[in-house]
Amino acid sequence: MTQQTTPDVVVVGSVAFDSVRTPKAAHEKLLGGSASYTSMAAALFARPGLVGVVGDDFPQSYFELFRDAGVDLQGLQRLAGKTFHWSGVYEDNMNNRRTNYTDLNVFANFNPAIPEAYRDSPFLCLGNIAPALQAHVLDQMRRPKFTVLDTMDLWITTTRDDLMKVIARVDMLTVNEHEARHLTGKGSLLKAAQLILEMGPRYALIKKGEHGAFLMSKDDMLIVPAWPLIEVMDPTGAGDTFAGGLIGTLAELGEVTREALHKALVNATVTAAYACEAFSVNRLETLTREQLDQRASAFRNMLP
Amino acid sequence: MTQQTTPDVVVVGSVAFDSVRTPKAAHEKLLGGSASYTSMAAALFARPGLVGVVGDDFPQSYFELFRDAGVDLQGLQRLAGKTFHWSGVYEDNMNNRRTNYTDLNVFANFNPAIPEAYRDSPFLCLGNIAPALQAHVLDQMRRPKFTVLDTMDLWITTTRDDLMKVIARVDMLTVNEHEARHLTGKGSLLKAAQLILEMGPRYALIKKGEHGAFLMSKDDMLIVPAWPLIEVMDPTGAGDTFAGGLIGTLAELGEVTREALHKALVNATVTAAYACEAFSVNRLETLTREQLDQRASAFRNMLP
Repeated sequence: MTQQTTPDVVVVGSVAFDSVRTPKAAHEKLLGGSASYTSMAAALFARPGLVGVVGDDFPQSYFELFRDAGVDLQGLQRLAGKTFHWSGVYEDNMNNRRTNYTDLNVFANFNPAIPEAYRDSPFLCLGNIAPALQAHVLDQMRRPKFTVLDTMDLWITTTRDDLMKVIARVDMLTVNEHEARHLTGKGSLLKAAQLILEMGPRYALIKKGEHGAFLMSKDDMLIVPAWPLIEVMDPTGAGDTFAGGLIGTLAELGEVTREALHKALVNATVTAAYACEAFSVNRLETLTREQLDQRASAFRNMLP
Repeated sequence: MTQQTTPDVVVVGSVAFDSVRTPKAAHEKLLGGSASYTSMAAALFARPGLVGVVGDDFPQSYFELFRDAGVDLQGLQRLAGKTFHWSGVYEDNMNNRRTNYTDLNVFANFNPAIPEAYRDSPFLCLGNIAPALQAHVLDQMRRPKFTVLDTMDLWITTTRDDLMKVIARVDMLTVNEHEARHLTGKGSLLKAAQLILEMGPRYALIKKGEHGAFLMSKDDMLIVPAWPLIEVMDPTGAGDTFAGGLIGTLAELGEVTREALHKALVNATVTAAYACEAFSVNRLETLTREQLDQRASAFRNMLP
């Protein structure tokens, strides 16, 4: 049975229905959720295994979409009830996002169980779920070589102690500008990143959206601007896609050297830009590795 | 007489007293003005000649500061009256600048006269003055190889026709994010840059402050993030310093190839970051080429 193979990278997080309206269009019950974007992006570079939960309303077509992309679904639980449903609206220049509603449904009782075949996976991406659950995942993994943790404002506010404990256990924390400032109380993103390193991780990755990202370690720093995207169709999941492109590339290379991290940042940037060109994971679904490599090469060529 | 030598680059703009308050400190009647920053930055790479005007209150020490840095002052007029005086305050995280007063004084009657020895200079930086005066400078130059034009909101609003005419005559327009949007009416900076190219210049350089800059031409794009600066002491003149580092590097290399432009963008970025580390041109005054080259090399090393 091929499902018994250990994935190159385990991706944990939400799988959801997204109902999204942007200034360009509106769509209902698209495939969404952090683990969906991250695993679809990682699948461009490696063999991810997805750990998440969906309800019995999750359509066959979405299961097939994942499988066609090469995402292993042995870790995707199916519970009786409805799938997590998020609805939001982007206003003006896509910079303002307003949530209409968040129906957690089966996600409210999510208890991530890591399949036996996943426990030896060398790379782990802990998407945005409750810090206690992220810790529970870490407890089940044997000795991942490299672990990336994402989080959000909700956990910084409501479960800060749990969050600090799990941050101390991972190799890289990835947050956006706002979360970095919220978590550390620092206005300067450089100071915020330095404080994150004091919390335990070897790497702090700060995502700045259209302004790129930077990766700080104790004695080094890598910087990557954003891919120049003329038209954004839907920015949902851009940060999760970035994380997927990053850890997918590291998993493909099998090592976390400076050169591998630079390559991972370029692939993450380009993959996230592709994701914004269409709603949901639609562009990731059709994207070929050749297209991605070409854009990554063009991007590097734009940099000094 | 050494002053009869043709400069590598002619820098036109304001020379001023700046009285500045930031959250860190406050200082009165510092050396300021666009041409001061631009020529001091350019002098790190080439021999600039400054075209501007000061009053009879301009101190000997400031003349000497320019000369010690290698800035030719044959084009700096001295008129009876007071030197242009600007006073401003930076609030919060340095992102809000408020002007207390702008006393134009002798600058109100500035009529840029280009010394004979300057007219064959191959590089020209037209700092932010009235577009009609910028055009008057262009009329006096013989055949500059490469001309960079800066402008500001005042001219976009009050003398748009004059501005459009002079934009059409230069090789590169350099503006900040806000000016780019104001000039073109486009929210997207990429679209704004495309529109600027339609106005005539071969290059549109959009400066994004702490988020770096990008340079667009008809079929190419170069991107540079900002140098990661932990402490900003005074951001006054950062954009002018960027322009000076850019055109100074091009003047040093003597050509405008893709590789030269990349090198110029790196030097511009690093020089502008140095300028922000102290008030006025103080850090540029003490900066050595060796320090600058080291930081430029470290910066390139941070990029993929």
